[in-house]
Order: sequence, then C-alpha cells, then structure tokens
Amino acid sequence: MGAAHSKGRGRFITLEGSEGTGKSTNVSVICRCLDEAGISYYQTREPGGTPLAEALRGNLLQRWAEPVDGLTELLIVFAARNQHLCNEIRPRLASGQWVVCDRFTDATFAYQGAGRGVEEGSISQLEEWVQQGLQPDLTIYLDMDPELAEQRLAGRMKDRLELEQKQFFAAVRRGYQRRAQQHKRMHTVDAAQPLAQVQQQVAALVQDFIQRSGG
Amino acid sequence: MGAAHSKGRGRFITLEGSEGTGKSTNVSVICRCLDEAGISYYQTREPGGTPLAEALRGNLLQRWAEPVDGLTELLIVFAARNQHLCNEIRPRLASGQWVVCDRFTDATFAYQGAGRGVEEGSISQLEEWVQQGLQPDLTIYLDMDPELAEQRLAGRMKDRLELEQKQFFAAVRRGYQRRAQQHKRMHTVDAAQPLAQVQQQVAALVQDFIQRSGG
Repeated sequence: MGAAHSKGRGRFITLEGSEGTGKSTNVSVICRCLDEAGISYYQTREPGGTPLAEALRGNLLQRWAEPVDGLTELLIVFAARNQHLCNEIRPRLASGQWVVCDRFTDATFAYQGAGRGVEEGSISQLEEWVQQGLQPDLTIYLDMDPELAEQRLAGRMKDRLELEQKQFFAAVRRGYQRRAQQHKRMHTVDAAQPLAQVQQQVAALVQDFIQRSGG
Repeated sequence: MGAAHSKGRGRFITLEGSEGTGKSTNVSVICRCLDEAGISYYQTREPGGTPLAEALRGNLLQRWAEPVDGLTELLIVFAARNQHLCNEIRPRLASGQWVVCDRFTDATFAYQGAGRGVEEGSISQLEEWVQQGLQPDLTIYLDMDPELAEQRLAGRMKDRLELEQKQFFAAVRRGYQRRAQQHKRMHTVDAAQPLAQVQQQVAALVQDFIQRSGG
C-alpha cells in the first residue's frame, strides 16, 4: 500500500483547534492511521518547523512588556510559514511524503483575523504570496467551548496568546467555525465528547481520506 | 528655536546606505545638527527599535544553517517595522519629537527587492499596510562603490547579510540609486569622499531641512 503513495505529490493534513482541545493526542491518532496504511509521513507544527521558524515562534509567544500589534503577529506567522514551506513542507510533498501539521493558515484566520481583528484581505494576500495556491488536502478542526478548553488547561504555564481573555477565544472559535463552513476540506469534530469518541471520529476521517486518496 | 518644533508633528529623518559607508558616524552628525538647533529628537535604528523588533533583527541577521528565503526576510523586516512604528516612531512624531532612524523602508527595497529579487509590488503592499502613508521627511543616502565599502569593513565580524557576495551588494547599490532618483526627499552623498567632506555635506542637508521646516 505504501508504494501507491510513493508516486506523485504527498498529501497535506492539518489539525486545527485552540489549546485544551486535545490537539497533541489527536495528531498521534492521525499518525497512527498513516502508519497502519504504510504511508511515509513527516510530522510538524506551526508556527515553527525549521530552526528560524521556531525562533520566530518563540518571539511570537514570548510575554513581551510592549504591546504586540495584530499585524506584527500576522507578519511573524507568515515569515515562519514561508520558511517552513520552502525548506520542509514543499520538498517533502514533492518527494511523495505526506505531511501532518499541527495548525496552519486556518489558525491565522481564526487567531489574527477573528481574534485580533486584522483584515481578512491582508491574510488572504499573504496566503497567496507564501502558499502560491498550496492548501491542505484534509483539515480536522477540533471544536470546543472555550470555557471547557480553559478548564482543561488549568494549572499549565501559559504563553502570551494563551493569556488572552474569554472574549478573544470566543472570537477565535467563531473564526474557526466560519472557516469550517467555507472549506470542504475542513471537517469539524466535537472535541467536548469523551476522548475515545473524538479519537474514533478523527481516525475515521483519516482512514476515509486515505481510501479516497487511492490508498 | 526648540519651541517652534514642539508644536505639530515631529519630522522623520532616515539615513541609508550599506555597511562600511559610515552610517554610524553620520547619524551622529545629524543628531549634532538637531542638538544645535535645540530640537528634541529620538535616535533609533531598523530593523529593531523595540525589544520584540530587536529580537526579530537578531533572527534576521543570525547565520542560519538553513537557506533563508527573500520573502521570509521581507516579512520579518516589516513585522519589526510595524512594532517600531506602533510603539515608538508614531507616538513620538505625534508628540512633536523628531525621529532619526538608521535605515528604513528604502533599505528594504534595496536589500530584499533589488538584492534578493523579491517583487517590488509585495514590498509596496506591505509598506502601505504598515506605514499607512507615513514616509520619512528627509532621507540621506550614503553612496559608495561596494568594493570600497568592503575594504573598510575588513576584519570586522560579519552578520548573515554582510556575508553576501559582491554581486548582491552591486544590486543593492543600484536599488538605492533608483530609489534616490524616484524620491525627492532622498539626497545622495558621495561617501567615498574624505570623511570631513561627507560630514560637511550631511550637516548642510540637515541644516537646510531644519530651516525649511521652520526652524
């Protein structure tokens, strides 16, 4: 089966959702499905994924004393994304490897767009420059009431974005939900369900996608 | 005389040129002229000028093992510029203070545009989003043959951009020269002249500008 995927471009799978929705666990579920299908893949995350992009992630999430403007965040995120695409994602997809990425541009529309109020037009323009038409083939969005996600995060050290107020996370969720309505590649999973059920649904989506991809 | 400038928006003076053209010395000349005219000013530099922007500068100039794409550089530079404008330059100009900045967007057109070959349209679009019409009131460009500048830099530790090849610096110079032809605010000083002459010409430009500004 693996051989079927070694020809042609690899597929690009992204996982989206706020902190506390169980992204890390469900990235593992995705990877297990690919392992079982004998598909060669590369697991990565955004912002980040190269040494420079990870340094930019550090700059983005650090708790600065100065206010950080939404447009500054947007430009840092896309600088990191451009490095990630140039040096990891594009070459790997081109070689036939699949890529599994924890967050991608849907997160930018949700956090910087809906959350910070940066104009969607600017985000779309940067998306065009940096991605040049490349989009994820499958996106799984873990949807959850921000208050429940907050409870799950209780006691954890928070970064600059995680320290935002309820209102911000409610806007981020609406942003994600709007994206999910607009994009057929994006599938919503109710992350408030018991974990076993969430994992089952994530696995089913990935297995179905592998099958549709000729696996 | 200082009082005349405390009313209304402060003026924005930038100094441009490659490394080795004597920028640091000539920033001091500009500041001395403002001191002598009793004008309150703030001296700063790009990329940088705020803690986050300086961290981004560090990431830009570090010698990464991975290739750094021109568009990545462009987005990092404008992320830093947005912070600098939001948190330092705009509030200071609005309060009537003058701002003297070592490099600004002309450098981006020269380095990332002419040097790296990033499309000018992208740079102009980012300039519009980030600067919202704000432009320097006076720009002094120190022009010099890159080979002479290189000799002056001999023995100094070089950052990632300073390690570029002759061809790159020749393109950067052409980029600067083109900008100087297109923008009336931009005055070229031949930096290959003896330093005393360069300083005299820089001082004359600044004194003339102060006078035209009602000083």
